[in-house]
Amino acid sequence: MLIDSATRDQLQEWEKELSAQYQRICQHQLNLDITRGKPSADQLHLADGLDGILNGDYRAADGTDTRNYGGLDGLTCARELGADILQVPSDEVIAGGNSSLTLMYHAVLTGYLFGFAGNTPWRELQSPKFLCPVPGYDRHFSICEQLGIGMVNVPMTEQGPDMDAAEALVRDDSDIIGIWCVPKFSNPTGVTYGKETVDRLARLGQVANPGFRIFWDNAYAIHDLEQQVNLPGIRAATLENDTADSVIQFASTSKVTHAGAGVAFVSASPANLASLRRQMQAMTIGPDKVNQLRHSRLFAEFTMLREHMQKHARILKPKFACVSDHLETAFGESDLGTWATPRGGYFVSFDTRAGCAAEVIRLAAEAGVKLTPAGATFPYGKDPEDRNIRIAPSFPPLEELDTAMSVFVLCVKLATVRKQLETL
Amino acid sequence: MLIDSATRDQLQEWEKELSAQYQRICQHQLNLDITRGKPSADQLHLADGLDGILNGDYRAADGTDTRNYGGLDGLTCARELGADILQVPSDEVIAGGNSSLTLMYHAVLTGYLFGFAGNTPWRELQSPKFLCPVPGYDRHFSICEQLGIGMVNVPMTEQGPDMDAAEALVRDDSDIIGIWCVPKFSNPTGVTYGKETVDRLARLGQVANPGFRIFWDNAYAIHDLEQQVNLPGIRAATLENDTADSVIQFASTSKVTHAGAGVAFVSASPANLASLRRQMQAMTIGPDKVNQLRHSRLFAEFTMLREHMQKHARILKPKFACVSDHLETAFGESDLGTWATPRGGYFVSFDTRAGCAAEVIRLAAEAGVKLTPAGATFPYGKDPEDRNIRIAPSFPPLEELDTAMSVFVLCVKLATVRKQLETL
Repeated sequence: MLIDSATRDQLQEWEKELSAQYQRICQHQLNLDITRGKPSADQLHLADGLDGILNGDYRAADGTDTRNYGGLDGLTCARELGADILQVPSDEVIAGGNSSLTLMYHAVLTGYLFGFAGNTPWRELQSPKFLCPVPGYDRHFSICEQLGIGMVNVPMTEQGPDMDAAEALVRDDSDIIGIWCVPKFSNPTGVTYGKETVDRLARLGQVANPGFRIFWDNAYAIHDLEQQVNLPGIRAATLENDTADSVIQFASTSKVTHAGAGVAFVSASPANLASLRRQMQAMTIGPDKVNQLRHSRLFAEFTMLREHMQKHARILKPKFACVSDHLETAFGESDLGTWATPRGGYFVSFDTRAGCAAEVIRLAAEAGVKLTPAGATFPYGKDPEDRNIRIAPSFPPLEELDTAMSVFVLCVKLATVRKQLETL
Repeated sequence: MLIDSATRDQLQEWEKELSAQYQRICQHQLNLDITRGKPSADQLHLADGLDGILNGDYRAADGTDTRNYGGLDGLTCARELGADILQVPSDEVIAGGNSSLTLMYHAVLTGYLFGFAGNTPWRELQSPKFLCPVPGYDRHFSICEQLGIGMVNVPMTEQGPDMDAAEALVRDDSDIIGIWCVPKFSNPTGVTYGKETVDRLARLGQVANPGFRIFWDNAYAIHDLEQQVNLPGIRAATLENDTADSVIQFASTSKVTHAGAGVAFVSASPANLASLRRQMQAMTIGPDKVNQLRHSRLFAEFTMLREHMQKHARILKPKFACVSDHLETAFGESDLGTWATPRGGYFVSFDTRAGCAAEVIRLAAEAGVKLTPAGATFPYGKDPEDRNIRIAPSFPPLEELDTAMSVFVLCVKLATVRKQLETL
């Protein structure tokens, strides 16, 4: 199917045929959901040994009674687990509660209300704003939106954010005080940042507002599908460039053990950690150390964590292959859309032709297949070209995913043909 | 020992004798801590069945897979547990993470940044402030202090806050937007608010700033030592007075199961809950539902929770008796200090004569007994009369507590006699 070279007759014929197929599918009254990056029950099951793993022994190796209050930084062994995941020293890690999103929220709050490392609180700036590589993660954008922090789109390339654009923006506007990054298997594009991108990001702190912080959400640090993909270290890059305070890193076990019942980590320079602790100590007496101990016992060695992640990969690979197969079969020889095949993470990002995404999502919903809402991968929910659709293959069983993808490709075709007919 | 009627000679003789005793104790190089309201290992052990209680079944009764993401309000069965503790309808309860302090922090943040139920955000007021019944809980005060919310002392009576004072303050200053309350076994006085106090608190919302909120930290709702002490319901009282939006209630299982690894609850009117959810949804995908399920299984019926609390009481009673005995023996026939014998909770509040508390705490520290820092029970750490000392008997073994209390009473005597000698 090549839309650009199709005649009106050809398009009309396609439209008729696709509409008929679509009507038939609608009659099946499907109820499928490829909306969110949730692990499947099979994946969750891999960590079911967590409950009961303590066997009555609630003491950490360092003697801490995990059942009692205290320990703002989290258990030593949990901090070490976070350090292994993020590849940083454990004394630069705080092990927190069940959600890295919550740690990010509080980190933004720290910058906004109090300022990091003695810098001006962001709320005192005229018009504080974050750079947002797009498409990106909606929950990052929601934090900024709630606090009234502005957002500026930066296009994603295959090496990460467009650094020419990012550098120009930072140079021109000292009210830019942050950037959201999912550096490995980016949500949703699947891109892993290249060495040059990481180096250039590490240098932003040399020209930006001194309160500028890179929010390095390494959510998929160990979530490779095949061979391990190497993400250049941001910490080393900032140390080389004298900008160690410019980055705050995050990770969690949400997509490792039990989503929503895992352990989250934040890592940063000593000065940033001091700022974070200052905010935290009014808010909490400490994280759930019992659950941290469970995780440390389950992954007593980092190799055990790696092996665990390979089990996830075995479950996820057929699902990603299913998505790729459908897209390749339907659009490999067409000009209807573009996508990349990720080597890890939780998403496949599909770009329709301009002005089609919302209609694809609407058609799919009517046929009983729920997709991430149109625009969700952009700040304020506004995809300026109405092109991006995030596909999350992890949660549904393979058979359901297969059906959902059949519906998806049909809806892309139908929406695109109709759009072209309107345009002609 | 009656200080007021003692002659200088008598005081000098006492001072000499007490100093000698104190010197002897200092040689023991004690290292005891009656600082914080932490459960003892014995108490924590009561809930050791939590880990492993799921027996591989991670599904809640309503079918929820607790291992996966989602559910901002918490599990239905956990909300019911919170509803039982707070004696409110479960649909007015959100079951959160491991800390009610964190829920309070976020509730203050909601009022401060966004405003409750459509009211003006507190940060937009000239000089927002909370009423703080004193002595009170230092961590409440820290939240206000961090956010720059002013604090106004209100004296505690044996029925709760001095309501004449509270009403006058609220009438005179529309920037008063909150009050901190620990209504049952108040921290540290042990007072349980009376019916008239609760009713008058419920009527504050009729005259206060419409954004005014009572922070009802019911931390010791079920922490009775003997017979159950009845706390009049604040919810019913506000409903009668058309002020249902003026109160937000909190509780947790921190001093029920494992401190720091339990479940916390917030309860409020639908309008307040909507405001809280608005803030929460940018911050988290949901609480740790697996741990909530563990708690719901451990306390499948409210009677099981009551029985569990009786086991706590059996461990705590001898410790509270130890404190009472020491105080009664040392000061029953004296004018050196006043205290009340609480019927539950975690603290005994002791008032020295004016100007002695800091010196008692210093002397005790030098003798190896750590007490809550002077002034900690007052906003900004400033006890205007330097009188209040919070004793926390729960954590140390009985024998250590006994030693610590011997040191304590000696330090009170010594500091008081020395102070009186200075004054004469």
